Amino acid sequence: MKPSPLPADFPVVGIVGAGQLARMCVPPAVALGIRLRVLAERLDDPAAQVIPDVVVGDYRDLATLRSFAAGCDVLTFDHEHVPTGHLEALEAEGVAVRPGSAALVHGQDKLVMRRRLGSIGVPVPRWAPVATAADLADFLDGTSDGRGVLKTARGGYDGKGVRVVRAAEAGADAADWLAAGVPLLVEELVDFSRELAVLVARSPSGQAVVYPVVESLQVDGVCREVYAPAPGLAEEHALAAQEAALRIAQALEVTGLMAVELFDTKDGVLVNELALRPHNTGHWTIDGALTSQFEQHLRAVLDLPLGSPAPHAAQAVMVNLLGSDLPDLYPAYLHCMARDPGLRIHVYGKQVRPGRKIGHVTVIGDNLEELQERGRHAVGFLRGDING
Amino acid sequence: MKPSPLPADFPVVGIVGAGQLARMCVPPAVALGIRLRVLAERLDDPAAQVIPDVVVGDYRDLATLRSFAAGCDVLTFDHEHVPTGHLEALEAEGVAVRPGSAALVHGQDKLVMRRRLGSIGVPVPRWAPVATAADLADFLDGTSDGRGVLKTARGGYDGKGVRVVRAAEAGADAADWLAAGVPLLVEELVDFSRELAVLVARSPSGQAVVYPVVESLQVDGVCREVYAPAPGLAEEHALAAQEAALRIAQALEVTGLMAVELFDTKDGVLVNELALRPHNTGHWTIDGALTSQFEQHLRAVLDLPLGSPAPHAAQAVMVNLLGSDLPDLYPAYLHCMARDPGLRIHVYGKQVRPGRKIGHVTVIGDNLEELQERGRHAVGFLRGDING
Repeated sequence: MKPSPLPADFPVVGIVGAGQLARMCVPPAVALGIRLRVLAERLDDPAAQVIPDVVVGDYRDLATLRSFAAGCDVLTFDHEHVPTGHLEALEAEGVAVRPGSAALVHGQDKLVMRRRLGSIGVPVPRWAPVATAADLADFLDGTSDGRGVLKTARGGYDGKGVRVVRAAEAGADAADWLAAGVPLLVEELVDFSRELAVLVARSPSGQAVVYPVVESLQVDGVCREVYAPAPGLAEEHALAAQEAALRIAQALEVTGLMAVELFDTKDGVLVNELALRPHNTGHWTIDGALTSQFEQHLRAVLDLPLGSPAPHAAQAVMVNLLGSDLPDLYPAYLHCMARDPGLRIHVYGKQVRPGRKIGHVTVIGDNLEELQERGRHAVGFLRGDING
Repeated sequence: MKPSPLPADFPVVGIVGAGQLARMCVPPAVALGIRLRVLAERLDDPAAQVIPDVVVGDYRDLATLRSFAAGCDVLTFDHEHVPTGHLEALEAEGVAVRPGSAALVHGQDKLVMRRRLGSIGVPVPRWAPVATAADLADFLDGTSDGRGVLKTARGGYDGKGVRVVRAAEAGADAADWLAAGVPLLVEELVDFSRELAVLVARSPSGQAVVYPVVESLQVDGVCREVYAPAPGLAEEHALAAQEAALRIAQALEVTGLMAVELFDTKDGVLVNELALRPHNTGHWTIDGALTSQFEQHLRAVLDLPLGSPAPHAAQAVMVNLLGSDLPDLYPAYLHCMARDPGLRIHVYGKQVRPGRKIGHVTVIGDNLEELQERGRHAVGFLRGDING
């Protein structure tokens, strides 16, 4: 590990995890002189490739976390997998953990999150905890179509840890999770027209900034495209989503960035998930807003005043690049850049594996359909789905 | 030095010099997956702080350059101080030096530059080479006011290597440089209304992109502020400046970025200086344009198609942060960010020394005067000139 000889008055932000979210913190850290240190699993993790100050270690080990945190001014996260008890221990020892464990648990545990959102009056889908097959059957009996979404309280992301269940087969569908004693909850299958997301940043001083509400196009539980702002969203739905995000950030005393994912329904918006970190639905802010979500996160965890979330253009479209069978991305740059000089390409330095999030592209402008065509073409070409 | 385990299909760009220009190449390199390696003078150079792959060595030593270039796909520069002969030697050995030595010499040697610009028909101030006191006297005798600007052909920047001379004292003023045998030239003192700059990028394939013409406010030969685009610039002067930049880039077969500095006069524009690298007058593009000059430089030296130079707003203002007696910058972030959420701050990780370029701020919007006030206030506060 190379020493970091930056001017001493600038703080060190320690990031647990060295994936693409930590990697995309590099540009604003370089600009602002903020020193980054990452706790990586491997030296070739996306962020470890581009940050000089890397510690390789296991984030599930308290001693490793303690040693990593020493010398960092604040500790923050690329992912939400650090055991809550470890974070509580670090906080007890005086480490500035941001977001704090009491807030972060709402992004780690869906049971905790659902209970809390109900208590602060944020609109959520109908739901119930599931400890037994009978709990599940009772809930499904109370639905109009006998269906529901069964979720593990912890560990789910990108469609993992989530199953649609039907009353008739619910016992069988849930059997393995129930047998394993995994905490579960079930939710109604919401009749939504689309999925929305709102990003909010909040600092320890209580300042909060909310970004425009975006639409996220999900396929098999994985975010594929984001439109910022959400096209044609009713003003009252947009305000309700932003108000919910601000209320949650305040009630949970979030420090740093939080993404609130919502369902847009004819009766209003319902909060689906929380992520207490920069989020895929905010990647458009790198090229499309005055302050990116990554800069905002760094400013928030350092208790610096937050930046303007103002967009650069009327519309931004972000398209995720999921890995295909094509191992090399770089050769496609020639075509993509020549075809579209305004295209913004981001890759994460990951080995290409089918379905893996390995990058994204963003385009900004006025016309949604044109931007979608440009973004989709670029990703199709980078994946090898399109050949000319 | 930590190994760089990035996916193998992405190229390595070796940058000679690890100052702020190399440092500001990091954000686009991270986004595009381009691997950077820097030849630094010291481990705490601005770019060496934020790039894992650092070699410390002397850029005046050919063996060091040769060893640094091995394993790089292309070699480019943070500064123009590498001896021309070394670059020619590397090129003879097959290293992709971009810009090539034959182009770069025009940014290194003002005599070579002046001769070449004259031969390609670009408008320049009246000038003459100076080998003796008599050469200088002859030139000054031919001016209307007996004054001129004496310059060393090599090594000048930020007002160094430049002297205003008068016929009466010219011999004494030039005596030390003449005695040292330094190649010199003299130019007329141009009656200009302001200084302009144009950035142009050109790839080995010959594609070229030109940015809007900017105005640069210079104090004692040091750039203080940049207004992009140059306010109220006559269309024909803007086109003449862009046309000159494109003609020079083409004639010199520039690869990478070139900044052309010009004088705006009532009779048209005159080319003053060339810099064959990203340039202080292009820092506004980081926050103010779709493609920053640093990304454009990387794309150009790699022969990737160039990006759109379209600005995000009607006006951008960049103000340089020159070091003052105040050693710490970070505490001022609280005030600056709270006062102006749209302010874009960039620091270079340098120890603060009076007069040293240690950072810059950029603001974008519609109103020039308002943007100037915001930029100047921020820099004044960061320097400690303003206290509230």
